[in-house]
Amino acid sequence: MPRYKLTIEYDGRGFVGWQRQANGLSVQEAIETAASPLGCPFGGIRGAGRTDAGVHATGQVAHLDLAKPYRVDSVRDAINSRLKPHRIAIRAASLVPDDFDARHSAVLRRYLYRIVNRRAPLALEAGQCWLVKPALDAEAMQEAARGLLGLHDFSTFRDSECQATSPVRTLDGFTVARDGDRIEIRVWARSFLHRQVRSMVGSLAYVGLGKWSAADLRAALDARDRTRCGQVAPSDGLYLTDVDYG
Amino acid sequence: MPRYKLTIEYDGRGFVGWQRQANGLSVQEAIETAASPLGCPFGGIRGAGRTDAGVHATGQVAHLDLAKPYRVDSVRDAINSRLKPHRIAIRAASLVPDDFDARHSAVLRRYLYRIVNRRAPLALEAGQCWLVKPALDAEAMQEAARGLLGLHDFSTFRDSECQATSPVRTLDGFTVARDGDRIEIRVWARSFLHRQVRSMVGSLAYVGLGKWSAADLRAALDARDRTRCGQVAPSDGLYLTDVDYG
Repeated sequence: MPRYKLTIEYDGRGFVGWQRQANGLSVQEAIETAASPLGCPFGGIRGAGRTDAGVHATGQVAHLDLAKPYRVDSVRDAINSRLKPHRIAIRAASLVPDDFDARHSAVLRRYLYRIVNRRAPLALEAGQCWLVKPALDAEAMQEAARGLLGLHDFSTFRDSECQATSPVRTLDGFTVARDGDRIEIRVWARSFLHRQVRSMVGSLAYVGLGKWSAADLRAALDARDRTRCGQVAPSDGLYLTDVDYG
Repeated sequence: MPRYKLTIEYDGRGFVGWQRQANGLSVQEAIETAASPLGCPFGGIRGAGRTDAGVHATGQVAHLDLAKPYRVDSVRDAINSRLKPHRIAIRAASLVPDDFDARHSAVLRRYLYRIVNRRAPLALEAGQCWLVKPALDAEAMQEAARGLLGLHDFSTFRDSECQATSPVRTLDGFTVARDGDRIEIRVWARSFLHRQVRSMVGSLAYVGLGKWSAADLRAALDARDRTRCGQVAPSDGLYLTDVDYG
């Protein structure tokens, strides 16, 4: 059974998230259904990141085993043609060794969080950015973000339903850049806890609004206490952009 | 009657275009209806560019006269609150002199045309970019675009229903830049003929595909013959981004 790696883009709206769930359509299920004529079994697709409902991806990665070998472009095109009208696209398919595992082989996951900082509503990017109306100080956010880099117990920024055995993670990068009324936050690490990015970004927005100092953010981290999380940023602005393999 | 300038963003899908028409809802009509409680009369809004159905804007400009003076932020917020659920947003409102005319005072109009050049469908930007599957040579497109700069009779790139008295226009800029699978085309001029940008971009895509040389594009221009236009690019990728005033 040849194994294929898929690189996937999707608009998270209208899905219950990446992971198959009883309460609605997941991205995983939509792709599995589209790939079933190629011999992909139920539950046969494994993703690198379990994005929540409403969270988007430009570079989610998954693997699947097919019943027989196909040209990689045929795999991509056959699944895409059956994915309509869902807002999911297989950007690329490639053949990988049998021991490649989209989740366990990943060495780095990269997320982008997009904020539009203005009074006017979003006409073109509704549901695809977080609209923050009061002025945010992006430089203060960048400075505070540095305080979360490295190895920490991220219990403060972990959803109460997170199933990871350890709250310790190593944050490799966390940058904040403004371009006009747009703020792009990029964060990367080997792995993340459940809702960690949205919890960190929401708390960082407190710094941008002047409600918290960089020291307050750091104190919230050090408290290792979920109730000290500032706020959880909405799913609208979050994108899984890349998954790196060794 | 104080005059206000509005800077407007919209998603062109679901509208018959900027201009009020009998066959459906226009952006102009939606804004006029939202602004009527402020004293904006029927037909009271004039836009700088008559974008077609499906064409987007990040910086359309219009003016309107209100019955009495309001704070500019109140004008913006009041219209925006009544525009829901339309995908139109007033980005800014400002007070302008009585002789300001969004259309006639404009000295430069800037358009962006967005192409995604890949095999996979668009999941996140469906309807907001032109998906071109075969490989495009953006450098060849940039070189050919230079041949259209300056003052010309643009009859070849003018819709048969264009109502302008003269087909002569001066093209001030026409750039093509690739970033990964994205190609951004920017074009600016004092004014454009009907469907001129989409006609030029569609023909430029012929150059990108290798069907036409730069000399072929130039010969099409020189023919001053609408039947020599290569193709008209879809509305999906076109954005009116800026209108400059003296």
